[in-house]
Amino acid sequence: MHLGPGRGVIERAVRLALDEDLGRGDVTTAACVPADAPGAAALRAREPLVFCGLEVVREVFAQIDPALELRVGATDGAPLDAGEAALTVHGRAASILQGERVALNFVQRLSAVATLTRDFVACLPAGTRTRITDTRKTTPGLRALERHAVRCGGGHNHRYDLGSAVLIKDNHVAAAGGVAEAIRSARAFAPHTSRITCEVDTLLQLGQALEAGADVVLLDNFDDASVAEAVKQVAGRALVEVSGGITLERIELLARAGVDVISVGALTHSAGSMDLGLDWIE
Amino acid sequence: MHLGPGRGVIERAVRLALDEDLGRGDVTTAACVPADAPGAAALRAREPLVFCGLEVVREVFAQIDPALELRVGATDGAPLDAGEAALTVHGRAASILQGERVALNFVQRLSAVATLTRDFVACLPAGTRTRITDTRKTTPGLRALERHAVRCGGGHNHRYDLGSAVLIKDNHVAAAGGVAEAIRSARAFAPHTSRITCEVDTLLQLGQALEAGADVVLLDNFDDASVAEAVKQVAGRALVEVSGGITLERIELLARAGVDVISVGALTHSAGSMDLGLDWIE
Amino acid sequence: MHLGPGRGVIERAVRLALDEDLGRGDVTTAACVPADAPGAAALRAREPLVFCGLEVVREVFAQIDPALELRVGATDGAPLDAGEAALTVHGRAASILQGERVALNFVQRLSAVATLTRDFVACLPAGTRTRITDTRKTTPGLRALERHAVRCGGGHNHRYDLGSAVLIKDNHVAAAGGVAEAIRSARAFAPHTSRITCEVDTLLQLGQALEAGADVVLLDNFDDASVAEAVKQVAGRALVEVSGGITLERIELLARAGVDVISVGALTHSAGSMDLGLDWIE
Amino acid sequence: MHLGPGRGVIERAVRLALDEDLGRGDVTTAACVPADAPGAAALRAREPLVFCGLEVVREVFAQIDPALELRVGATDGAPLDAGEAALTVHGRAASILQGERVALNFVQRLSAVATLTRDFVACLPAGTRTRITDTRKTTPGLRALERHAVRCGGGHNHRYDLGSAVLIKDNHVAAAGGVAEAIRSARAFAPHTSRITCEVDTLLQLGQALEAGADVVLLDNFDDASVAEAVKQVAGRALVEVSGGITLERIELLARAGVDVISVGALTHSAGSMDLGLDWIE
Amino acid sequence: MHLGPGRGVIERAVRLALDEDLGRGDVTTAACVPADAPGAAALRAREPLVFCGLEVVREVFAQIDPALELRVGATDGAPLDAGEAALTVHGRAASILQGERVALNFVQRLSAVATLTRDFVACLPAGTRTRITDTRKTTPGLRALERHAVRCGGGHNHRYDLGSAVLIKDNHVAAAGGVAEAIRSARAFAPHTSRITCEVDTLLQLGQALEAGADVVLLDNFDDASVAEAVKQVAGRALVEVSGGITLERIELLARAGVDVISVGALTHSAGSMDLGLDWIE
Amino acid sequence: MHLGPGRGVIERAVRLALDEDLGRGDVTTAACVPADAPGAAALRAREPLVFCGLEVVREVFAQIDPALELRVGATDGAPLDAGEAALTVHGRAASILQGERVALNFVQRLSAVATLTRDFVACLPAGTRTRITDTRKTTPGLRALERHAVRCGGGHNHRYDLGSAVLIKDNHVAAAGGVAEAIRSARAFAPHTSRITCEVDTLLQLGQALEAGADVVLLDNFDDASVAEAVKQVAGRALVEVSGGITLERIELLARAGVDVISVGALTHSAGSMDLGLDWIE
Repeated sequence: MHLGPGRGVIERAVRLALDEDLGRGDVTTAACVPADAPGAAALRAREPLVFCGLEVVREVFAQIDPALELRVGATDGAPLDAGEAALTVHGRAASILQGERVALNFVQRLSAVATLTRDFVACLPAGTRTRITDTRKTTPGLRALERHAVRCGGGHNHRYDLGSAVLIKDNHVAAAGGVAEAIRSARAFAPHTSRITCEVDTLLQLGQALEAGADVVLLDNFDDASVAEAVKQVAGRALVEVSGGITLERIELLARAGVDVISVGALTHSAGSMDLGLDWIE
Repeated sequence: MHLGPGRGVIERAVRLALDEDLGRGDVTTAACVPADAPGAAALRAREPLVFCGLEVVREVFAQIDPALELRVGATDGAPLDAGEAALTVHGRAASILQGERVALNFVQRLSAVATLTRDFVACLPAGTRTRITDTRKTTPGLRALERHAVRCGGGHNHRYDLGSAVLIKDNHVAAAGGVAEAIRSARAFAPHTSRITCEVDTLLQLGQALEAGADVVLLDNFDDASVAEAVKQVAGRALVEVSGGITLERIELLARAGVDVISVGALTHSAGSMDLGLDWIE
Repeated sequence: MHLGPGRGVIERAVRLALDEDLGRGDVTTAACVPADAPGAAALRAREPLVFCGLEVVREVFAQIDPALELRVGATDGAPLDAGEAALTVHGRAASILQGERVALNFVQRLSAVATLTRDFVACLPAGTRTRITDTRKTTPGLRALERHAVRCGGGHNHRYDLGSAVLIKDNHVAAAGGVAEAIRSARAFAPHTSRITCEVDTLLQLGQALEAGADVVLLDNFDDASVAEAVKQVAGRALVEVSGGITLERIELLARAGVDVISVGALTHSAGSMDLGLDWIE
Repeated sequence: MHLGPGRGVIERAVRLALDEDLGRGDVTTAACVPADAPGAAALRAREPLVFCGLEVVREVFAQIDPALELRVGATDGAPLDAGEAALTVHGRAASILQGERVALNFVQRLSAVATLTRDFVACLPAGTRTRITDTRKTTPGLRALERHAVRCGGGHNHRYDLGSAVLIKDNHVAAAGGVAEAIRSARAFAPHTSRITCEVDTLLQLGQALEAGADVVLLDNFDDASVAEAVKQVAGRALVEVSGGITLERIELLARAGVDVISVGALTHSAGSMDLGLDWIE
Repeated sequence: MHLGPGRGVIERAVRLALDEDLGRGDVTTAACVPADAPGAAALRAREPLVFCGLEVVREVFAQIDPALELRVGATDGAPLDAGEAALTVHGRAASILQGERVALNFVQRLSAVATLTRDFVACLPAGTRTRITDTRKTTPGLRALERHAVRCGGGHNHRYDLGSAVLIKDNHVAAAGGVAEAIRSARAFAPHTSRITCEVDTLLQLGQALEAGADVVLLDNFDDASVAEAVKQVAGRALVEVSGGITLERIELLARAGVDVISVGALTHSAGSMDLGLDWIE
Repeated sequence: MHLGPGRGVIERAVRLALDEDLGRGDVTTAACVPADAPGAAALRAREPLVFCGLEVVREVFAQIDPALELRVGATDGAPLDAGEAALTVHGRAASILQGERVALNFVQRLSAVATLTRDFVACLPAGTRTRITDTRKTTPGLRALERHAVRCGGGHNHRYDLGSAVLIKDNHVAAAGGVAEAIRSARAFAPHTSRITCEVDTLLQLGQALEAGADVVLLDNFDDASVAEAVKQVAGRALVEVSGGITLERIELLARAGVDVISVGALTHSAGSMDLGLDWIE
């Protein structure tokens, strides 16, 4: 497994979430559960899924009570069947109860992103070089975690943010005075470590972008026939990315057409929530 | 319209989101767009929806460039048709481009929550006293905003967090030594301003909870017949809340059965994303 | 003992306080005390009091020097006699000296709140159901800690904040167009988990509030006779809270009159400071 | 009037306090008060006091609603009679209601500190050079504001924190190996801009401190006779500060004895709360 | 001029710096300067330099006192002669004095970075495609500002951070099992928007990197002859970057040798400070 | 060795720096280095220097990976020869690689400050009482660390900030109406623990400052002859500080002239960067 998000990112996200839910205490647990009563619980999948969120769950319980002990059964990216446990947590019952909801809120979302990504990746023909990537359509505040979840599902990441690579869209073209001017300006300004992607709406624009030396052409909302035509026109001179209107059904065809990158906003904006729960054990 | 979330909450959420996307600058816009080139764009629905997120959008653009001007066409909670604009933003083109994605990321999620809530609320029979509420299954970091979106869709809020009301679950009952003991402990400990909700799994437990004086009984994963039976057994001695396995199809029946509260985790954990976009104008 | 405030709350409060006092270093200790010289000190009451602040003291010393060892003699809520030690701290003398003032600043205030609360609670007749509660008149930044101190003194908490329960005051009534309208609006809007409290200034208003179904009536600045009259009028239809002009002397009479809740702003705004000190030992 | 605390300090303190009280919204006001209903209120003293907190109140209302207008009647340090208004605030009624408690929580504490300081200062004989100062026994998180309040009451500030001046106490002396060694070490280490204060418990130690060149001698818990004897012994070679057991009654005598500085922990740790309220007007 | 760092970045850096210098107030100004005394001052170069820091200076004074007025004479990137003013600031004298040092601390460093970059860029032969770039050897906490200063001096930015592009160093090669394996792993893992840079120490490694398809080869500490040889070997198949031991004297030769990128750590780690001062005017 | 900066200061500075460099992950290491591959590296001086930054390096690696082990070879203030190791770090190779740059960025700057300070201090004649101090011309955000580095080089600290001591400059004199008035105002207002420094430009002003009782006179930009004349005029009535145009060459003469304090802005604003590197071992 590759490295996940850094500790700082996880710490901050968990602190915010715990502050939302537990920042004013937990009146029910304080009233009903003796402070030192022991407990143990298993985090279980309630439907088949790709698990994601181990380090987040660890941090949730560590921030509430460093004495809680986590026993790990599955690492991020592992497929779980319904009923299978990803981990168990042992220690003060009150501490477990206080962290339950926040831990689940994270892990249900992240596992949903990982699982949906896996579903897209599973549609790729064997041996293809095509990759499925996320977009910047992530949940505000959770980008680093969701990008990690995409990787756990077998997907790839697109550029992190507006600062880490060039992606020229129609408004940039309009402001720069044309596709060629925009690409030339970007080449002159951006770090030499960044590839230049140019979004195109038509085959005409595609030609301009290729001529101006775009490293990546992004076919925006092209239908399958146009994608095939575009790939032929590009002829290896640039990477080909498609975006817009991507469904599971189209993945195989797009990959066979020779597309390099299929970027799918739905991976992060519409993954919803997988069903996992914390079951009391022992 | 009722008051939305406070300014502090919105400021912090927007600052985090902008830091994620724009914290390392925007190389494309810096390269291609003259710093003072003017621009204007309309935020438009691309499918019918309940709009939510006006103050967040305002804050996004204000944090990037206080000189941007927002012209408001729709307030939170307004239904928009496909193509209808919620607002327009005018000023430096570069500033608008830098805020576009973050603004959309917020408004697409919040409008999805509002729209899904509206769909549930629309299933309630006219004149019913039954309310649809959210749960604590919110996106980490966005609880205040999502609760606001639920209200914009005509729903109600459940307790904000673990500190603001008592909700006794099975583990609290087990730790306290029984339903009656748990309710008694909660009554003795919690602020007198909080009602005591007790989750029950069976009609037997329901009887115990009523006898012990629960203010609200939460029927967890009851089927329709059991709900009806339970409402009859309660006979007005407590509010009746149902939760678990709630679908649009069940709403009318549950309301007609006399349930007071239907709490729906899906409002916030599975609303997905509505399609809104920023279209360049003028 | 019930659960205290969460770790996050304590960490943040201590970080702020240490930043105020130690954020620019400690020139005296740096000059005079060898970095590794050992030391030990006892935190002692210098007058009889109810101790409160153990976890805060622990956090103060942990943030300065994780190698310091705390030996606990008394937990929060314990009564201490003059001269009695609540805890001892062992380790680097320099670290102890750097944390002394901040630790004392917390524990002196929190113990004062706990002790004053205990004094009020001690005036209640045996077996009464009347509770003494705090208010929102807490020290800015220390609400969670002070509410904990109130509980340590045997008191109860009122609502945490403006978001966690409804309390209708005269201005709300005026804005809503009357007591009944205000209560109806609140019932329709607020989470069903919240009781509705309505403040009343006269017996006439009390009647309106009861008729409109208030769960709690708050008698504001009523004299003893009026309180008795009001309790009779309420006749169990609502909880009765009194507030304003509460002194130790009135507590017994109010409790015997059948009041449910006596809320006392002075618990947090005028508790002052109890005398505790850190005495060097060994 | 001298400069108050910087804007950054006030902004942060207010943000924390508003987050405590309003961070989860205000259900009562949201339910009962139309969002745009106008209102106005006067902040009035309900007992004679020295007012302090204008800039904090301004910030409270500005953070909630920048459209609120403040009309200033009294600046910090002004004496107010019972019934006299310090300021009025005009704008949305809902915004005023949301800020009321937090504004009062600040201003009641700060005015109490200013008023108590004024009471101590008023005991000084006319024309004396003796000054009344605060200590580091401030409320955690509010040090800058409370020091400002002390100045508003006519008092002076002691060193801000452990980093801004040298104050040698018994443990420093013990660790350094004697009074002379401690003073010599401090002189060698500390910024040359800092005076060296040495706390002494006996006249013998006083002699050692003077011989070692202390700039200030702090007589800790000396009775009046010993203070007089000490002042004589110092004979102008150092500033004389007294601390411990200071009451209003002792001030005049101590001043007449020639003491330079009387530091009073009670100014900040036991000032309690003055009665001010927000009265609806118009 | 291209867009500078975002407002959020500048706000936070200035807040930290003001907290360091002004967080405990300004005793001298408070004592000596009437609160409303007017003043005006000019920020002047005291030696020839490339100015940088306008928006930071604006933010410093805005955070202290929003009523201060800035009149701009030079924008970032402008060359100033000794004695020439970049801007003037008008308003309360006390406010100007409080911000003077922090404003200068920023602008002296940033102008030094811009000026040193300009000196390197000035050594490039006319019409060259070679660019001078910064590195990640920036001052902790000031990276965004220093990268902006490099651009103001006519330089280019290298990758922002470890997350925004691939740069394979010797340890990565060792861990991956060889140059080819490292490049292949990076290509498979990294966003497709990122170019792959591989650092090489020898011509042998250079050959491996080219064969494995590196987009950029970084010649680490090559002497001029080896650089020339390497450029010949690359023959346009990759961008050529040189780093290590770069001096002003070598720039022209390296550029004429056909190097694409010269990255210079000294731009940010050894620029020192240019002499600018704030002169009182009027 | 004296106490260094507090843990809170170091934690915050390191968190900011890691967020800059590692906040979006490390794509190269994630791609090339197996997550659990072990590694070890030595932090070595590559030129003779005074080492500074041990605790910062410890914190950098601890925040990334608490399982990394540091073995300390040199403490802050130790002189290192070229090739000598200050410490070694052992654990996961990936973790070491992720922290390398940030650790070096700190330690190269801090060691440069310590080394330059040592160079100045080395110019002082043996047995002198003259001290070399820093100024407030520190890097924004790094003041506490740089002041520590100055102490590590054998220098002394000047006042921490605007709040911790009085330093009257020409504008304060102008605003107060003269040197005597400014000193009198400062004496009346400032904490009695602070010495009063008055900057003077001429011998005439020097006389006024002495007469008004300045504790320290700061000779601003005096040449050597004028300094000697000034010291004679002061005749022990105040400490003498010189500032402006200080070079290594002048130090001995200034010290022999009897100056007490030589404050040198260059210690922090122009120290540049010492060459240290992290060498892979084992």
